Amino acid sequence: MKKYVFTPGPVPVPSEVLIEMAKPIIHHRTAEFESIFEEVRDGLKYIYQTKEEVFVLASSGTGAMEAAIVNTLSKGDKVLVINGGKFGERWGKIARAYGLEVEEIVVEWGTAVDPDAVKEALDNDPSIKAVLLQASETSTGVKHPTDEIAKITNQRDNVILIVDGITGVGVFPLNFDELGIDVLVGGSQKAFMLPPGLAFIALSQKAWKFSETSDLPNFYFDLKAALKSAEKNTTPWTPAVTLIIGLNEVLRRFRAEGIDNLHGRHANLSHASREALKAMNMELFAKDSHSTALTVGVAPESIGAGPIVKGLKENFGMTIAGGQDQAKGKIFRFSHIGDIEATDTIAIISAIESTLKTLGHDFDFGAGVTKATELLGK
Amino acid sequence: MKKYVFTPGPVPVPSEVLIEMAKPIIHHRTAEFESIFEEVRDGLKYIYQTKEEVFVLASSGTGAMEAAIVNTLSKGDKVLVINGGKFGERWGKIARAYGLEVEEIVVEWGTAVDPDAVKEALDNDPSIKAVLLQASETSTGVKHPTDEIAKITNQRDNVILIVDGITGVGVFPLNFDELGIDVLVGGSQKAFMLPPGLAFIALSQKAWKFSETSDLPNFYFDLKAALKSAEKNTTPWTPAVTLIIGLNEVLRRFRAEGIDNLHGRHANLSHASREALKAMNMELFAKDSHSTALTVGVAPESIGAGPIVKGLKENFGMTIAGGQDQAKGKIFRFSHIGDIEATDTIAIISAIESTLKTLGHDFDFGAGVTKATELLGK
Repeated sequence: MKKYVFTPGPVPVPSEVLIEMAKPIIHHRTAEFESIFEEVRDGLKYIYQTKEEVFVLASSGTGAMEAAIVNTLSKGDKVLVINGGKFGERWGKIARAYGLEVEEIVVEWGTAVDPDAVKEALDNDPSIKAVLLQASETSTGVKHPTDEIAKITNQRDNVILIVDGITGVGVFPLNFDELGIDVLVGGSQKAFMLPPGLAFIALSQKAWKFSETSDLPNFYFDLKAALKSAEKNTTPWTPAVTLIIGLNEVLRRFRAEGIDNLHGRHANLSHASREALKAMNMELFAKDSHSTALTVGVAPESIGAGPIVKGLKENFGMTIAGGQDQAKGKIFRFSHIGDIEATDTIAIISAIESTLKTLGHDFDFGAGVTKATELLGK
Repeated sequence: MKKYVFTPGPVPVPSEVLIEMAKPIIHHRTAEFESIFEEVRDGLKYIYQTKEEVFVLASSGTGAMEAAIVNTLSKGDKVLVINGGKFGERWGKIARAYGLEVEEIVVEWGTAVDPDAVKEALDNDPSIKAVLLQASETSTGVKHPTDEIAKITNQRDNVILIVDGITGVGVFPLNFDELGIDVLVGGSQKAFMLPPGLAFIALSQKAWKFSETSDLPNFYFDLKAALKSAEKNTTPWTPAVTLIIGLNEVLRRFRAEGIDNLHGRHANLSHASREALKAMNMELFAKDSHSTALTVGVAPESIGAGPIVKGLKENFGMTIAGGQDQAKGKIFRFSHIGDIEATDTIAIISAIESTLKTLGHDFDFGAGVTKATELLGK
């Protein structure tokens, strides 16, 4: 049986990229690698839509989230965490691990934060130094209004906006310079369609100003050292050479595709998947603002999410994700990031359709694939 | 021209391993990956010769060096750094970045630390909490006496021995449990013959006791979280899936080869290389205790290292390393780690021989390859 990965990271890697990474290794302190790295730096600036440096870390996304905090803030600083899921929660954990004071806006899972609540919190407490947010909360499928929140933080000299864009960058518009995001984190195993092991991070000039007074200890994630090295097309520590070679290939594809088409591709797959689920008499977990990185369905109560995840795996070779923590057993998540096209999306809608029928869900059989075909067929 | 990588990391990766890593990606929260990770955990324990857990971090070696410090020590702790090269120096930098007090034993580049000096320093200052050492100092080719120093730290309940074994683990015996090393760091792009992007670290029971009172902030490198996850054959953050799949292949090879043969292979290549350099009227940079990970030659003063490195690259497609910092222009370094065999080693000796002749070095032409063939031929 053919195997499909529809998890919101890791994601399928194009064969051409896998093969690039399987070529004989090269050393990183060579003209050959430096030329690749120069092209990568340019490509990342294009995807981030920024003139600032975008750093490539050998770590998973969580490492770059830590880098965001330890390079900009100081012990005892108060931060405002938007906690509407597993990854929002993680911002709070990292901040507390470094002795920051955390105020949280707890957002009901499945809903987006209200920008007014952020404004109010900042108005009420001028000592808050940073807002920590997910552009896309992968545990719930919600897209938070990064643009609206950036407008609020941009009006304040003493507050930076730190955004986990791990399932946002490359998926939907997050124009770093134009929106005025201050720190933006990305990860290789998401829209970048690479294996896990690389993370990305950029800092605005405002964030760099924060870094001058930041006193949190760090070494491996020191972005000042990374900046010095980047100017020489290298990294301070041994880079994950093969993954960076793969990244260069992916960034070339993205350039050829164009950033609007890149975002459009995810939007189309996401829209068709949502409409197909609705046509199958299914509810979406995200109430309003949907991340186009993944679609999150609510399992019918009589069935639960477990049998759906299991059925897709056993009968169709498709790995999708269930819910985490409070959403465990209640939701199922499948993604539109990675090397996934319309054909793959129609395949999973069809598989969900068959699985739901087998499990006794009441709906108009065929309505899902029909809707997906209508929306994704040319 | 065929290309050879003889740098002491990154190193050549066997084609079979590259191909394993180029297979379609799998998700890390699956029975399939967990079974691979279980086998990896066992294999790493075999190479470390330990019953303790050996953690797999998605980072380069420097990240694991940081993990060693932030998981065991506390702010203001005094540590004794053995600084006999670029990587010894790095221990001091990481320790200072976290507010530790650093006492250094500065060792002349090219020589090994005298264990008596370590004993004396610990006797003189009972407040020292840790000795930080390189098993193999890659910038000089020196092997420090980890075993002798472990005997000293083992006699003291309040001192742990933290060893950077990045170019030591898998190269020569560093029996974790038997020697009583407390923290041992390894890296994927060395003896493990993988691309860079993974690092390894194990803690002794004594080091775990230190971790209970350690107050240095950390999150991504939190080994208590890693321990909880490892028991369930997983990692707290998304692991570098493809590199771990490659690691499993390499560890299977190591099991088949046997740990004594693994060490013996490096020792033979190193011995033959050293003898061949001597036969070419060349001096070795390491005065006494040689790391068998790499051979470091002193360039004749009239020639300098630059033209040797350049000649090997341009005429033979061989990438080797020059010297760093104070050794820049003075030494050249080529390695025995990675997918390198006797035939490759004879090839580089022959290339060095031709290069030295072209550059006007005075020696008995042919003596190098003759010696290498004598020692490496069957």
